[in-house]
Amino acid sequence: MYSNKIQKLIDLFSRFPGIGPKVAGRFVFYLAKLTDKEVKELANAILEVKNSLRPCGFCFKLFEPSEAQSNLCEICSDNSRDRTILGVVEKEADLVSIEKNKPHKGIYFILGETPSSFKQENMKSLKVKELKQRIEKAKAFGVAADFKEIILALNPTIGGEAATLYLERELKDLNKKITRLGRGLPSGGELEYADRETILSAFKNRK
Amino acid sequence: MYSNKIQKLIDLFSRFPGIGPKVAGRFVFYLAKLTDKEVKELANAILEVKNSLRPCGFCFKLFEPSEAQSNLCEICSDNSRDRTILGVVEKEADLVSIEKNKPHKGIYFILGETPSSFKQENMKSLKVKELKQRIEKAKAFGVAADFKEIILALNPTIGGEAATLYLERELKDLNKKITRLGRGLPSGGELEYADRETILSAFKNRK
Amino acid sequence: MYSNKIQKLIDLFSRFPGIGPKVAGRFVFYLAKLTDKEVKELANAILEVKNSLRPCGFCFKLFEPSEAQSNLCEICSDNSRDRTILGVVEKEADLVSIEKNKPHKGIYFILGETPSSFKQENMKSLKVKELKQRIEKAKAFGVAADFKEIILALNPTIGGEAATLYLERELKDLNKKITRLGRGLPSGGELEYADRETILSAFKNRK
Amino acid sequence: MYSNKIQKLIDLFSRFPGIGPKVAGRFVFYLAKLTDKEVKELANAILEVKNSLRPCGFCFKLFEPSEAQSNLCEICSDNSRDRTILGVVEKEADLVSIEKNKPHKGIYFILGETPSSFKQENMKSLKVKELKQRIEKAKAFGVAADFKEIILALNPTIGGEAATLYLERELKDLNKKITRLGRGLPSGGELEYADRETILSAFKNRK
Repeated sequence: MYSNKIQKLIDLFSRFPGIGPKVAGRFVFYLAKLTDKEVKELANAILEVKNSLRPCGFCFKLFEPSEAQSNLCEICSDNSRDRTILGVVEKEADLVSIEKNKPHKGIYFILGETPSSFKQENMKSLKVKELKQRIEKAKAFGVAADFKEIILALNPTIGGEAATLYLERELKDLNKKITRLGRGLPSGGELEYADRETILSAFKNRK
Repeated sequence: MYSNKIQKLIDLFSRFPGIGPKVAGRFVFYLAKLTDKEVKELANAILEVKNSLRPCGFCFKLFEPSEAQSNLCEICSDNSRDRTILGVVEKEADLVSIEKNKPHKGIYFILGETPSSFKQENMKSLKVKELKQRIEKAKAFGVAADFKEIILALNPTIGGEAATLYLERELKDLNKKITRLGRGLPSGGELEYADRETILSAFKNRK
Repeated sequence: MYSNKIQKLIDLFSRFPGIGPKVAGRFVFYLAKLTDKEVKELANAILEVKNSLRPCGFCFKLFEPSEAQSNLCEICSDNSRDRTILGVVEKEADLVSIEKNKPHKGIYFILGETPSSFKQENMKSLKVKELKQRIEKAKAFGVAADFKEIILALNPTIGGEAATLYLERELKDLNKKITRLGRGLPSGGELEYADRETILSAFKNRK
Repeated sequence: MYSNKIQKLIDLFSRFPGIGPKVAGRFVFYLAKLTDKEVKELANAILEVKNSLRPCGFCFKLFEPSEAQSNLCEICSDNSRDRTILGVVEKEADLVSIEKNKPHKGIYFILGETPSSFKQENMKSLKVKELKQRIEKAKAFGVAADFKEIILALNPTIGGEAATLYLERELKDLNKKITRLGRGLPSGGELEYADRETILSAFKNRK
């Protein structure tokens, strides 16, 4: 139905998260209607983001180095952050959501997306070794931190729970205080519709 | 369009929770297709539930007295329950949801549905006076209880939060331990999509 | 969790169209909060609808006879209706929806809900024999009609289509004009999202 | 929260049809995880689609010219199409949906997206003048067509209906047969849930 070049771009957009071929097709028609200048601006922005972003040498968050030699992201190099608390999150989007609400004054480590099952071999894609290195010798990575608490801020999904258990075991020997996020009823939630685990944790964590 | 009798029944069904006139109409046609026996069974079941149910003299849960003189529901009269903990819930459906998951070994008190706003005058429909009486003199209501903890198991909705604050103030003089349900990420929740209150409580209640 | 009487009523409500046990439970609590008078009103309305409704002797629509001896519904006995056109519908709710919009001046026949598959044995539950009798000898059923057109106003679902084909074959020998409802794009529909059958009929039925 | 370059790309993606800033953010993180080669492939595909696509000289469909001098899309230059029928559609996505189902053997004209209201001044963005020119002198645009029927295959939305009325008036003097798509119940639709316009057209267009 579509020419090769359109189909190729539809295929590439179809790999974007949450995008199917129908929406990908609408993207292509949207692009075709832009001016040459606007399309070049988009293509350049895509290349620049890729070229100018670099994973932080400590936390792996993508950042845009302000100076050529800088190795640390704006959070890791911000001296006003509390360098005794390390928040371990699954992915950049979780970090952004946390930062927007400011419940965490410490710094972060991005572990990688957790698997959707409990199998231990699935934990291999997580940056557990890198996390341990950073907790043990933060300074070697350019951060003058001495962690007193490691918050395992993983999501209470199946994979996040499995990874939390796995990390608790893996980090035990470091002798740090290891915490998990509070579990219970979310804002606006109702007991009548809550699942078993949430009801159990709401009662267990009452205070 | 419909005859008076059909319209009347459609109107009555339209008052059922969550039912609009279209679904109410389907109910009527459903009934019209039942046998006489089935329709009588339904009408009787409706009358019987109303006639045979009575609010528990202590907790206000509806129950079906096994003997004519009994005044307490099956939970309040169950000697194996922990009579040192009182769970205050908004409505019967919350109690049922909790009981199904068994996180609570104590007994209950049904406060009434909380208002959808913070206004104090809206608190008048709640059975606060009755709650106080039961905490102070449980025995006068037939329950040999001596409460050490009052769990305010209200929902973290706007009304539930307002009622929780209100109850904390109202119950302060009773000198009981007053707790709230744990707040935080629900099972399966994700930081990326969580609202501000939930993220704040997840970090605050970490452990 | 619930007493026998509550559970019994929950079971009965769970048989209502589209109602699951959770909503059925809410119905019961709703009833328990009504006054005695209101509950009796509901039970009576249910019994009365059943007792006072009768299927029309011609079209099978449920109606409330105004006089004890009347056998025909208000549509079949309305002399201003066009008795040369018979609209065959699946169910009362379709008839109500048509009447509300007044595209049809003729009278009706309610065939019964069509099966969800094409199998011919599933057609047995439809009132095909009764339909034929009424087309051939309307007067014997109390309606002074001489049909020139039979509109098969069945829904374009799998079962409705199968029943339409079946009826066309069954009614052929009666030598009446037999029509189907127009097929095509519905109001507000879009070609981009329409299914194959709808696009084909929209082009085929262009005019 | 995000660096300038990330925010810029988020803004550009947020202009894509149906994409908000949250999904746009996920797109950026998705891109950042691709290899350099993959990102370049995407940027090039975007530029190429824009550079290599050209609107067809007759129907305005975007196409990829196979030879530098070609001016007509693959449909307009396909000699097996019926050049006596012209299908006027709103947008490329409608054309693609029609072509997939093959109800139309003629050629097309893309009119432009119809306004969401009935106001006549909103019709100015439609290519009505261009349509007239092509109907009158198709050969001047490189297509050896002699149209006997103009199918106004616009969507039965408010804007599509308004544009159809407007076109019927504008094209009247050309003395061509002008048709509209069939209106009625879509495949799978039910009378019970259909809107007024659809029920009226289903009865009116019965046959």
